[in-house]
Amino acid sequence: MKTVDFYFDFSSTNSYFAAFLLPEICVRHAARVRWLPLHLAALFRDTGFDVMAMPKPKARYLWRDHQRYAEWTGLPFRKPSRFPIKTATALRSVLAAARMSAGGEADFAQAVFRAYWEHDRNIAERSVLAEEATRVGLDAEALLARSDDPSVREELATVTARAAERGVFGAPTFFIDEEMFWGKDRLDFVERQLARASGDEAFPVHSKMER
Amino acid sequence: MKTVDFYFDFSSTNSYFAAFLLPEICVRHAARVRWLPLHLAALFRDTGFDVMAMPKPKARYLWRDHQRYAEWTGLPFRKPSRFPIKTATALRSVLAAARMSAGGEADFAQAVFRAYWEHDRNIAERSVLAEEATRVGLDAEALLARSDDPSVREELATVTARAAERGVFGAPTFFIDEEMFWGKDRLDFVERQLARASGDEAFPVHSKMER
Repeated sequence: MKTVDFYFDFSSTNSYFAAFLLPEICVRHAARVRWLPLHLAALFRDTGFDVMAMPKPKARYLWRDHQRYAEWTGLPFRKPSRFPIKTATALRSVLAAARMSAGGEADFAQAVFRAYWEHDRNIAERSVLAEEATRVGLDAEALLARSDDPSVREELATVTARAAERGVFGAPTFFIDEEMFWGKDRLDFVERQLARASGDEAFPVHSKMER
Repeated sequence: MKTVDFYFDFSSTNSYFAAFLLPEICVRHAARVRWLPLHLAALFRDTGFDVMAMPKPKARYLWRDHQRYAEWTGLPFRKPSRFPIKTATALRSVLAAARMSAGGEADFAQAVFRAYWEHDRNIAERSVLAEEATRVGLDAEALLARSDDPSVREELATVTARAAERGVFGAPTFFIDEEMFWGKDRLDFVERQLARASGDEAFPVHSKMER
């Protein structure tokens, strides 16, 4: 069974879209998603990237683009009132969820994405994370306690450092083996790669242009 | 008949891909392409963007990504040995070509894109531009003379300034009426917009996700 490594941060709009589109792709190709919370703020601190340094026309355009993408996918995306937002606790909670329940991290991560990108909730607040944990059937108190565990803090730093070593510079980023794909706009390439790996001839792997 | 405004610069890899993919899309939807040379260096000078300030892992990834995209589209893309490259003369030559022959700018622009992104030619040199002009049946000497005309210089500055006014911050950028699309990764949205405009029901305009 193929695995797609999925590096995401809740602060990333494109990670939100990928968090719902990627699992559907994986189901179609009998692959599994490995949910890897990535602390973008820490990654960007090291690479010197500043998300707020974006030219205004580009920022304006990107919101419009997200809106169109939401319309196309049917995902009920809404621009949050708090942006950017601190996500370290939420990311550590995903790691805690994985330790508490196999697969629990997937449901919890999707719930947190929805809370922020659909319901404009403040996911920097522990009470909001607790509500989302309860919603997906996790023990909220245990989850939050665990998210503060030094070994969980270390795991977030390790996942992020390992991502940087593999060449990750933004989110979402996907890996199939060591082939890296950046951005929700490469989900079609992720899908082709999975189709190719499973020898699924029915899926078109390329469309050669006539020259 | 719908028109797609196509802002491009020869220094932009993604403009190269769009220069061949967009005309095919327009043929399918009986639309026309308006070729609008955009002086990215001048645009970036005003917005403070520095293409060479990109983190190394990102630059490395993007070349790999271009390679995959080339494989998928069948376009014989090759990483040029000179990058970035000065494009002002080449861009002005496109405007000169348009004045000399209706549609001549399309053939000439595609020829210059091929010269740089397929054949590693130095398109900053007038002799190379002259060869490409001849290849597409234009009077090379007249074209280069015309490209130096003060009114052509002014036109390049005007097209670029107008683009900035419309919200353009990079290339390729497409407009259908005042709806803006940035990047070759939005050519599918351009196609959907054209299909919608022409009432072509056969083309899927969205794929609603089940939630």
